[in-house]
Amino acid sequence: MRAAYYTGDKGFSIEAATAVPPGADSVRIAVAYCGICGTDMHVFHGAMDARVGTHRVIGHEMSGTVAEIGAEVTGLKVGDPVVVRPLAHCGICPACVRGHTHICHNLKFLGLDTDGAFQHSWTVPAHTVHKIPADLPLKHAALVEPVAVACHDVRRSRLAAGEDVLVIGGGPIGMLIAMVAKRDGANVTVSEVSEHRLGLARAFGFTTLNPKDADVAKSVYEATGGKGADVVFEVSGSQAGIDTMTEAAAGRGRIVMVAIHGSRPQVDLFKFFWRELELLGARVYEAADYDRAIELVASGAIDCEAMITNVSGLDQIRQAFEALDGDAQAMKSLIQCS
Amino acid sequence: MRAAYYTGDKGFSIEAATAVPPGADSVRIAVAYCGICGTDMHVFHGAMDARVGTHRVIGHEMSGTVAEIGAEVTGLKVGDPVVVRPLAHCGICPACVRGHTHICHNLKFLGLDTDGAFQHSWTVPAHTVHKIPADLPLKHAALVEPVAVACHDVRRSRLAAGEDVLVIGGGPIGMLIAMVAKRDGANVTVSEVSEHRLGLARAFGFTTLNPKDADVAKSVYEATGGKGADVVFEVSGSQAGIDTMTEAAAGRGRIVMVAIHGSRPQVDLFKFFWRELELLGARVYEAADYDRAIELVASGAIDCEAMITNVSGLDQIRQAFEALDGDAQAMKSLIQCS
Repeated sequence: MRAAYYTGDKGFSIEAATAVPPGADSVRIAVAYCGICGTDMHVFHGAMDARVGTHRVIGHEMSGTVAEIGAEVTGLKVGDPVVVRPLAHCGICPACVRGHTHICHNLKFLGLDTDGAFQHSWTVPAHTVHKIPADLPLKHAALVEPVAVACHDVRRSRLAAGEDVLVIGGGPIGMLIAMVAKRDGANVTVSEVSEHRLGLARAFGFTTLNPKDADVAKSVYEATGGKGADVVFEVSGSQAGIDTMTEAAAGRGRIVMVAIHGSRPQVDLFKFFWRELELLGARVYEAADYDRAIELVASGAIDCEAMITNVSGLDQIRQAFEALDGDAQAMKSLIQCS
Repeated sequence: MRAAYYTGDKGFSIEAATAVPPGADSVRIAVAYCGICGTDMHVFHGAMDARVGTHRVIGHEMSGTVAEIGAEVTGLKVGDPVVVRPLAHCGICPACVRGHTHICHNLKFLGLDTDGAFQHSWTVPAHTVHKIPADLPLKHAALVEPVAVACHDVRRSRLAAGEDVLVIGGGPIGMLIAMVAKRDGANVTVSEVSEHRLGLARAFGFTTLNPKDADVAKSVYEATGGKGADVVFEVSGSQAGIDTMTEAAAGRGRIVMVAIHGSRPQVDLFKFFWRELELLGARVYEAADYDRAIELVASGAIDCEAMITNVSGLDQIRQAFEALDGDAQAMKSLIQCS
């Protein structure tokens, strides 16, 4: 079998590799598709070399079928279509003890801290595997992981039907959050600077605002009778997004911090006090988010065909990363690993 | 009767004034005591002249007895001991419509936007008046307002018995929050730079840390078996406090923003994402917080005698403000208005 190794500085090496036989509680999966995540793009740019090294199979937004199962694995059989929730927790830290295994103090992320799915065959702990319906196309199933991120973000927001939602940033995750929120009955507005993405957002049925042309907070207040957004998802990772999130939120509004802010931006804490705002950090997902994501992808609630803008072969992985890099017209790029 | 008018630039003028006869749904109160709030100190410094003007009776942390009631007022009679929840809401804005009258978009704060309690006689809307037990000393009852702030802050935190709490800033409000949290069964640590206040905090039974001597976050992590603080109250209003709040919080920890940050400090939003932290803005109080505060003050759960470090007459109001200004040894200064 073959595997794509990230080798540092935007490089990949496609090499012959040996399929890892599953241990007693592991499963070997024949990988079908694996999407390119924003985190993978950070790796590609060399920003995570200290964590991943320079001979690492990355990739985690995958789908596939069970190829081999360990002796103690129950509930799975060879041929089952599956996706993987790529989190290995320690089970003994304070977060795990309280049931928050997805923010385990010693969390290992499969495909970053261990080898991932940009290869023909991937062996993972059985507890990370979720079965998917037999009639769910494996291409679509590769979106389950990012959809689970969106499900987790929306769940953290305690969104209720009829509420007004502002999504700041219309990239793949922002767009999926908007879809999940709309599915939950929200009135969704997407703020985004790319006109192409705004067109896509309108096609998906969202109200759109371009901060280059409009005062986003003012527009949201006007559209909601002076109330503001009940829930704001900050997905832009920008200072402008941070400013808008506090300006646009309603009294007692919930702001979900989805973006990863490496620096320490300035935050209008006075507005948190004045309007009793809430900021809710949200990281990855829990098992329930995977269950919901599988259901949403299988039901057609997520427009997978519109979201998947490219599929490349494993041999073309470097070109696929290069093409995706900074391309605002692209949404989700998949690598076919089978 | 006499009233103390703030006249700008640290000045007060004690003048003869006419008691305002109560309208149909108002109550005139003979003021007994009124505490000096941090907000009053801001007024004293001239920082709120645009809002309060320079001929305004300020003061709102008060106690007194009903002197006269309007024709349509029910449930109150002359002589009843009372405190006032000094908030007048509009009833029609989006926040009021949703029941959050304390963050009304058009909220008037009695004693800032209208005349307050540093006078012999104060006339207020009946809906702001809370009866207090007959055997509760009026001097102690003047603490109900700041205790209600603390009750609101603790309620916003969803504190559970047995949780680890860090209070950053050991001034009057921080100390009252610590008392309420301890009453609710929390293990409370107070972080404060003044050794005098730390001594007081220890006398009240709290663990103490001085950030000048210790790494507060590290100490909290060590003391909690690597978990961190379940709830952090940021009461310092400082960048150092903002840094500590995210460093010291446990995974899924709740941080309550009590301090009023006029500028936009830098916030470690990465930690919000990584540990799924929550930030909860908290402003003033609701009726339920007043009910609880009256109960706590009446029951002796709040050590009022230790908290009240000075009582001055109305004629000495300027001297009382001057003496309190920057005095870390002082906690709560009262003005006797009767």
